[in-house]
Amino acid sequence: MTAIRVGVIGAAGRMGTEVCRAVEAADDLELVARVDEGDDLADLAKAGARVAVDFTHPGVVMGNLEYCAGAGIHSVVGTSGFTPDRLAQLREWLAKSPETGILIAPNFGIGAVLMMRFAAQAARFYESVEIVELHHPNKVDAPSGTARRTAELIAEAREGAGLGEMPDATVDDPDGARGGKVDGVPVHAVRLRGLVAHQEVLLGDDGEMLTIRHDSFQRTSFMPGVLLGVRRVVSTPGLTVGLEHFLDLG
Amino acid sequence: MTAIRVGVIGAAGRMGTEVCRAVEAADDLELVARVDEGDDLADLAKAGARVAVDFTHPGVVMGNLEYCAGAGIHSVVGTSGFTPDRLAQLREWLAKSPETGILIAPNFGIGAVLMMRFAAQAARFYESVEIVELHHPNKVDAPSGTARRTAELIAEAREGAGLGEMPDATVDDPDGARGGKVDGVPVHAVRLRGLVAHQEVLLGDDGEMLTIRHDSFQRTSFMPGVLLGVRRVVSTPGLTVGLEHFLDLG
Amino acid sequence: MTAIRVGVIGAAGRMGTEVCRAVEAADDLELVARVDEGDDLADLAKAGARVAVDFTHPGVVMGNLEYCAGAGIHSVVGTSGFTPDRLAQLREWLAKSPETGILIAPNFGIGAVLMMRFAAQAARFYESVEIVELHHPNKVDAPSGTARRTAELIAEAREGAGLGEMPDATVDDPDGARGGKVDGVPVHAVRLRGLVAHQEVLLGDDGEMLTIRHDSFQRTSFMPGVLLGVRRVVSTPGLTVGLEHFLDLG
Amino acid sequence: MTAIRVGVIGAAGRMGTEVCRAVEAADDLELVARVDEGDDLADLAKAGARVAVDFTHPGVVMGNLEYCAGAGIHSVVGTSGFTPDRLAQLREWLAKSPETGILIAPNFGIGAVLMMRFAAQAARFYESVEIVELHHPNKVDAPSGTARRTAELIAEAREGAGLGEMPDATVDDPDGARGGKVDGVPVHAVRLRGLVAHQEVLLGDDGEMLTIRHDSFQRTSFMPGVLLGVRRVVSTPGLTVGLEHFLDLG
Repeated sequence: MTAIRVGVIGAAGRMGTEVCRAVEAADDLELVARVDEGDDLADLAKAGARVAVDFTHPGVVMGNLEYCAGAGIHSVVGTSGFTPDRLAQLREWLAKSPETGILIAPNFGIGAVLMMRFAAQAARFYESVEIVELHHPNKVDAPSGTARRTAELIAEAREGAGLGEMPDATVDDPDGARGGKVDGVPVHAVRLRGLVAHQEVLLGDDGEMLTIRHDSFQRTSFMPGVLLGVRRVVSTPGLTVGLEHFLDLG
Repeated sequence: MTAIRVGVIGAAGRMGTEVCRAVEAADDLELVARVDEGDDLADLAKAGARVAVDFTHPGVVMGNLEYCAGAGIHSVVGTSGFTPDRLAQLREWLAKSPETGILIAPNFGIGAVLMMRFAAQAARFYESVEIVELHHPNKVDAPSGTARRTAELIAEAREGAGLGEMPDATVDDPDGARGGKVDGVPVHAVRLRGLVAHQEVLLGDDGEMLTIRHDSFQRTSFMPGVLLGVRRVVSTPGLTVGLEHFLDLG
Repeated sequence: MTAIRVGVIGAAGRMGTEVCRAVEAADDLELVARVDEGDDLADLAKAGARVAVDFTHPGVVMGNLEYCAGAGIHSVVGTSGFTPDRLAQLREWLAKSPETGILIAPNFGIGAVLMMRFAAQAARFYESVEIVELHHPNKVDAPSGTARRTAELIAEAREGAGLGEMPDATVDDPDGARGGKVDGVPVHAVRLRGLVAHQEVLLGDDGEMLTIRHDSFQRTSFMPGVLLGVRRVVSTPGLTVGLEHFLDLG
Repeated sequence: MTAIRVGVIGAAGRMGTEVCRAVEAADDLELVARVDEGDDLADLAKAGARVAVDFTHPGVVMGNLEYCAGAGIHSVVGTSGFTPDRLAQLREWLAKSPETGILIAPNFGIGAVLMMRFAAQAARFYESVEIVELHHPNKVDAPSGTARRTAELIAEAREGAGLGEMPDATVDDPDGARGGKVDGVPVHAVRLRGLVAHQEVLLGDDGEMLTIRHDSFQRTSFMPGVLLGVRRVVSTPGLTVGLEHFLDLG
């Protein structure tokens, strides 16, 4: 099998560095170009890159993707800031390059994506669902984006299944220990020195509980998702939003 | 909406009693017949039962199902002992009653079924998977049937994904603390006074872990699965094996 | 060894019934009297009770204890409502009966008492501590009394160790997901159908986490603590408040 | 308050480097000497070190400690290999320098030490106890030294409390899923990519479970224990074996 030739845009950044390392370590992938600020995007085509991985920033990502789509280079994108307008623009560019694929993923952690998916699937069957997210104490926002997104997906699934409000007899909670609600789903945010990024979804019904927990200990945990994206985007023309579409979850 | 008329076979047994109670408590179901040893199966048709729930034993269940299929009564069956021959026989009976459905489920715990399903789906993405099952100390067999089945499903998924043996550098394990393997998946069986039935599937890869855990605290936890079976079997002609087929997991 | 002769006051109540059952099941204890509303407390002395177990209510418990102290019968008390004034009164009665002992315990769950004790001991060594308590959704108050008490003990231990406020960079928490604080210790209250009474104390510091968790699945879990109280009160004259004093924790 | 002057022996090693960094970061400590292979131990006295931290190897540690004891420098030692003979030799040296202290600790993880201590204290009250230890898959031995030591302490505590064998009805365990026993305590060893070093002690009795879990995510988690040793050894003349003696656990 020929290795897939990969270029990395933003190669000197925190995530870009990890991606370069991961691509080099994979037998079926070959790192052919490292592009960073000041470099010429044309280096990608010159090096024969078939896929470009982009971890840059919202200010430059659209230019990068316009170039790649034009050059027939598939893209795997971890940069944030994709509004509906931007997505529409991407679809337009891809329409002119119908064999090229772009994967935009807000979260490349396969485990986190599976957790959200499983939580949403299970939510229909449980009277009660709550989320506990646990992070290091330097995090400035609560709840985490992943917890918020999980809660939205759970709320959507519950609504689709015709489930109403969750049972909760609490009348006396002077300290606010019951925490916050996102779309009606209670979310509790723990901040603890020593932790990295963790989340637990607790689903309860008469006589039983189902728990789905994800622990992220290091940034390297995003690499398998990036590599999966690279391997799959080459045979997935058009725009794909969300890594879950590449996980063959049925 | 008219309530679904339900008869329970083995109504005086441990599970049958719970089923009667659960059917009576459900607004959309009506308990119309309780049949037990010595009673006439024809009572089901006389009472106008549309669905029969069978928690009896392998010695009598085939007779019960022959009657129900013949009478056009759908069945939801928690009795064990279904060999391929028996399933073939059921299909034959159903062929003559093409609008009738039978659901055979080895496990009516929705949470346990979801856990197995999610574990199998996730297994493809993780280098390491191990199972810890925890039960009360009066259990005579280890590992539990659910743990064994989970391990088989995981092994199948890993094989399908082309994953090889899991990493394990252990060379020195004088006490056998690494436990047992089922189809290559390590399974650890904990027996602890105070517990009921619990299982944890741990999936690990570089920098992350995904955990899927199910806790069953009481027998009542099987009832939502039984009721779901009753509600769905009426519109699912033919033979269905496994509650997962009624969970719309995509 | 002669069995300890035990009388139960409030024998027909929910807890009293469990206590009677547990005393009868213990080889070294003998149930000699069941006293309830309308019965004569003098039955305890007539039956030769050496220890009385009292699970009644605040309105009658003082009368019961006055009788027992006067009759030289040791008491093990799970009834609530002991103010400093009431405790002073008990000490006065005991002063006149110097060989008699009374144990007052707000919580007879040995595991819960150990959890609180361990949490307080460990708290001195950790920069961050948070509590997650999980209960059935019919509970009307949050946080639970045990969580509140645990938080107080942790706060006390932190203060004693000269620890200041915990690190927490949260500036953006629109939903209140960070929950409530009791004496400066964050407490999160989860309410989930299927649960009974559970609590987790999470202690974190650079690179590590210590978790102490207690799961109470059934009311029977209080009985070992009651029986331990009975066995120890006979050799512990005077007033003892809190089961922890009988656990020989050093 | 004057800062405590600290010298590090083995300063260039993996642990020594971390210790230097931790001492420098502490306000109440001052790093005054880094000694490594080829350096003169006399540098410690010249620099005015009051405490020496030794993470070297069994071949040189006794020479280091003889020097320190002779120079009246207190020692905190993480090096392994202390036989009863070696400990006797240390006591002899300290007898001639009665104001000097040495702390030898097999484990500087405060959390791990607390877990072992709490597990041993709780074991007396529970009919069942099992240990699950979880590590990365490159670990060559199972069970871990910490799990083995925990099991020994639990077995000792159970024996002291007159507890017999644990309940276990298992008669059918074809795969050996019940794992290994250390001094009669079942220990299960999980090996999972992504993990570091984790252990859970599960204690069960009628209707309840107590869980004590320690997660070690990084080597830095040993530093608070080392610093605590430094702060306490200066006022603890003589030989102390085990960090637990400095934790004031009563």
